[in-house]
Amino acid sequence: MSQWGGRAHRAMQVPSPSMREVASMYGTAVAVFLVILVAALQGSAPPKSPFPYRIPLDPKKSLELSWNVSYTQETIYFQLLVREFKAGVLFGMSDRGELENADLVVLWTDGVKDYFGDAWSDERGQIHLDPQQDYQLLQARRTPEGLCLLFKRPFGTCDPKDYFIEDGTVHLVYGFLEEPFRSLEAINTSGLQTGLQRVQLLKPDISVPALPLDVRTMEIRAQDALIPDKETTYWCHVTELPAGFSRHHIVMYEPIITKGNEALVHHMEVFQCAPQIESVPPFSGPCDSKMKPDRLKYCRHVLAAWALGAKAFYYPEEVGLAFGGPGSSRFLRLEVHYHNPENIQGRNDSSGIRLYYTATLRRYDAGIMELGLVYTPVMAIPPRETAFVLTGYCTDKCTNLTLPPSGIHIFASQLHTHLTGRKVVTVLARDGREKEIVNRDDHYSPHFQEIRMLKKIVSVQRGDVLITSCTYDTGDKKLATVGGYGINEEMCVNYVHYYPQTQLELCKSTMEPGFLQMYFHTVNRFSGEEVCTCPQVSVPERFASVPWNSFNRDMLKALYGFAPISMHCNKSSAVSFEGEWNWQPLPKIISKLKEPTPRCPASRGQSPANPTVVSIGGSKS
Amino acid sequence: MSQWGGRAHRAMQVPSPSMREVASMYGTAVAVFLVILVAALQGSAPPKSPFPYRIPLDPKKSLELSWNVSYTQETIYFQLLVREFKAGVLFGMSDRGELENADLVVLWTDGVKDYFGDAWSDERGQIHLDPQQDYQLLQARRTPEGLCLLFKRPFGTCDPKDYFIEDGTVHLVYGFLEEPFRSLEAINTSGLQTGLQRVQLLKPDISVPALPLDVRTMEIRAQDALIPDKETTYWCHVTELPAGFSRHHIVMYEPIITKGNEALVHHMEVFQCAPQIESVPPFSGPCDSKMKPDRLKYCRHVLAAWALGAKAFYYPEEVGLAFGGPGSSRFLRLEVHYHNPENIQGRNDSSGIRLYYTATLRRYDAGIMELGLVYTPVMAIPPRETAFVLTGYCTDKCTNLTLPPSGIHIFASQLHTHLTGRKVVTVLARDGREKEIVNRDDHYSPHFQEIRMLKKIVSVQRGDVLITSCTYDTGDKKLATVGGYGINEEMCVNYVHYYPQTQLELCKSTMEPGFLQMYFHTVNRFSGEEVCTCPQVSVPERFASVPWNSFNRDMLKALYGFAPISMHCNKSSAVSFEGEWNWQPLPKIISKLKEPTPRCPASRGQSPANPTVVSIGGSKS
Repeated sequence: MSQWGGRAHRAMQVPSPSMREVASMYGTAVAVFLVILVAALQGSAPPKSPFPYRIPLDPKKSLELSWNVSYTQETIYFQLLVREFKAGVLFGMSDRGELENADLVVLWTDGVKDYFGDAWSDERGQIHLDPQQDYQLLQARRTPEGLCLLFKRPFGTCDPKDYFIEDGTVHLVYGFLEEPFRSLEAINTSGLQTGLQRVQLLKPDISVPALPLDVRTMEIRAQDALIPDKETTYWCHVTELPAGFSRHHIVMYEPIITKGNEALVHHMEVFQCAPQIESVPPFSGPCDSKMKPDRLKYCRHVLAAWALGAKAFYYPEEVGLAFGGPGSSRFLRLEVHYHNPENIQGRNDSSGIRLYYTATLRRYDAGIMELGLVYTPVMAIPPRETAFVLTGYCTDKCTNLTLPPSGIHIFASQLHTHLTGRKVVTVLARDGREKEIVNRDDHYSPHFQEIRMLKKIVSVQRGDVLITSCTYDTGDKKLATVGGYGINEEMCVNYVHYYPQTQLELCKSTMEPGFLQMYFHTVNRFSGEEVCTCPQVSVPERFASVPWNSFNRDMLKALYGFAPISMHCNKSSAVSFEGEWNWQPLPKIISKLKEPTPRCPASRGQSPANPTVVSIGGSKS
Repeated sequence: MSQWGGRAHRAMQVPSPSMREVASMYGTAVAVFLVILVAALQGSAPPKSPFPYRIPLDPKKSLELSWNVSYTQETIYFQLLVREFKAGVLFGMSDRGELENADLVVLWTDGVKDYFGDAWSDERGQIHLDPQQDYQLLQARRTPEGLCLLFKRPFGTCDPKDYFIEDGTVHLVYGFLEEPFRSLEAINTSGLQTGLQRVQLLKPDISVPALPLDVRTMEIRAQDALIPDKETTYWCHVTELPAGFSRHHIVMYEPIITKGNEALVHHMEVFQCAPQIESVPPFSGPCDSKMKPDRLKYCRHVLAAWALGAKAFYYPEEVGLAFGGPGSSRFLRLEVHYHNPENIQGRNDSSGIRLYYTATLRRYDAGIMELGLVYTPVMAIPPRETAFVLTGYCTDKCTNLTLPPSGIHIFASQLHTHLTGRKVVTVLARDGREKEIVNRDDHYSPHFQEIRMLKKIVSVQRGDVLITSCTYDTGDKKLATVGGYGINEEMCVNYVHYYPQTQLELCKSTMEPGFLQMYFHTVNRFSGEEVCTCPQVSVPERFASVPWNSFNRDMLKALYGFAPISMHCNKSSAVSFEGEWNWQPLPKIISKLKEPTPRCPASRGQSPANPTVVSIGGSKS
């Protein structure tokens, strides 16, 4: 790579490269591609292309990003295809998709020459050249499809202006330059056509398990549902397994999205009804419809889940999700969340999920377990907080009682909050020491709730504690946001997919409610005001009357970090395991995991404070 | 500089430099010295040497450090003189003077060659070579005095393993290697003879004002005091100004330390008695002696203060500290703090302070004002806290009432806490916005309380707020540490030196005591235990019975950050200015100053992960 870096540097110093130099550059570019191919082949299974991942950035697909990850080099190789190149393009990353304080690469022209530079935007959107050029251009060429830029960036650069590429969601941002700019500093993102796309850049470097030879498929989908012309609809559709359908293993599933509805179908889940449910009347309509069969509420066992941005989901080679056969219900419920903010009318949809299953049962049954917080208003977030943390526990007492002696193995995870969720993390602790991250997303978005394969299977032993923390932003709220099912209430959940399956379906906690009563009393005492502490007033109402000064905020935080908890250590169907689960001590953590710090690249700053002159054969052609 | 860097690099690649190369290196070294001289001359007054600051590192003076600061390059030039070179030496910096987690340069030999490297020690004291070499060796040569190393280091390196050289106290560490080591990694600091020395490395780049032609001196010193053979003695000595001594201005003062007692004299202060005090009987003895004249308690107006490590103190050119003349007492009290932990007996001492004064009064009278916290147990630090912050305020109401219309100008500051103080900072806020740091020491030590000239005079206007925060470490305490006068109680004080003098001598705050009563009540309610809240029990006793769980800690923190305050806005002699000073609102801060971030040097990492081979003519000669 450094050889090419040197070339780029030289090209910069000699603004008009001679034909020989250009030829030499192309030669080097070929060498670069070979290196990339070798890097790509270092994974356990060879991906089909040097850029196995691809996503359109804008709705019109003018910009298409492909990428590959080298974990050994801790570097991402990007290929950005610009289908209609006018006067330039910018691409980059920012904390939550804003164009301000973004880490950018900019390809721009001053009308004479074209330039490529590592840049950043300040809090007003004004673009500046980075003193350290960490995005390194490897190639720029015209193709029949458009202008193709090849560049690389280390995960971390140790430049405080740069975005640190971490596990979890990355908010990609982009923008189009319509006219030449005299200099980079003349560009402000606020005047451009821009957008954002969420993606998991650091895809796990794991091989796709081979499907069994006897694999069959089954499509669980709505049939020509008329999407209601309102922002949010949960559509329920009942379907049933064939009579006499024996026990099978789901080994893979993938979404089926009706063409044209890609932006409307927000998430989908397939639930199986409880074994007791022997028949369900046919139904296809909004889940809140009065016509909905009452017994559908017993159909909550998750078989498959998909959310915007996710791809096919594969079970590990020895694992399958059991369905069918005796002791299980034949009835399934498909739930589709339609997100239709523009109230589009008359759109029909038959989206759903295609299950790949086998009759040859694999060694292990897979299970799904819900970690985090109980849905209760006792857990609340004061208004005007930009990073308030709530934490739910799965205690040693519960894992001791419910896990098999050899433990369980978590291979995938789906994080879930409602609209104010900004970060989610689950940590495994053993003997009071944090041992391992189960899943972490520091740029979590409630609009991008993928099921993610873990990079490394996490084994949970009896006596381990699983701690799930969610960070919320209630900066635009006037009242406290309480826990609950409503879209304006909050959740903190990690659905972990694991094997072998156990009876434990839910391992969550809430603060012991009596302490909230004492909290309201203390708020009263210190404010000299009347916050109703009478039991007939609901918890959300009592929260609504708290004056949110710093003391009441800090005291609530302190209480959540101190008060005993009430555990939900439940089998399916909300049945608790036997034992005392109230007034449990908060798990004590005596040693924490270190925060991830970026490894600074060994060599850096090839060409400080100078963009690279790019030879792409004229910007207007 | 980079030219020499290149040379050093080449010398490293060719382990035995030829004579010609050595000659060339010496030539470059001379060039380097010229550059340093030019840098030194960039200050407004030329210092006497290219290394104006010098300090012995160890008690035997085997190691002597000289240094110079280039604020334009943000770099320190060090000259380390090793008088007795055996097999190597290490020198560096760490947070509080520990040899673990220290940022080091190491000069060592493997018995054949000598090496110089930028290194760091881990939490076990094990030394590692730094992947980025930021200490750059400029010269190593033998002199008649010993081995002399010349090297430089930028203030900040952006290497997370490196110490960031900031304003305030720096804990220098050193160690001696007695034998060759095969490699740097074979060295552990725990097996070495090591030590620490505190110093302010970033001395203010201000010129020393010229003394007036008519300057006279006066020595205020104890006369052959017999230092008691106990750890701590405050020695009081009464002296008086000559009869008819008219109004003068002190323009400078310096310490006089009796030879041999340098390690025993910890700090000294000269106080003037209140104007009402027309006579004081002669006295020289411990301040807690029963023989001490009672009226000495009225002698608390500070004229001069010196602490270990400080040098001469100069007033700004137009400013002097008034003493003598009508309306002022002729009686002075010298207080010397003897620190005698080894109970040395029979040591006599005549240390004191030499005042330089002039009859030609300067334009402005100087004043000293006390900022921070009232000495009261209401302000307390729970035990086992490693970084607990207490904050004292000088409010807009007090500055509005007491400052002249044109404001005051702070030119020096002395930070003060007792033994658990670890950081002190005073920030000036205007209209709710933090504007400027008055003085900040993030590596503050109660054992190094210098009066420091500010790098830049800070002007305080009417209506400004001065916020003084102290960070304490009570990690080894079992009970709360309360505010008070005792050495085991705590203080949070910034003595600011300013002009023109005003009547305001003390501008400090404490939390409104009624809120502490409510705190104890709440502690009671939540613990279900009996913490006595009855008023006849003293505040320290009530603090002693608090169970220090996380909630009670966090709630106390929250209360200090919320409850109204009681102000002491006082003239001299503890007389309050007229007005209501209880139940004052805590000043609201809507915007904070940004944390200082190191500016990364433009070019870095000359020779990653390789020490420099040094040619010093054999290590054993």
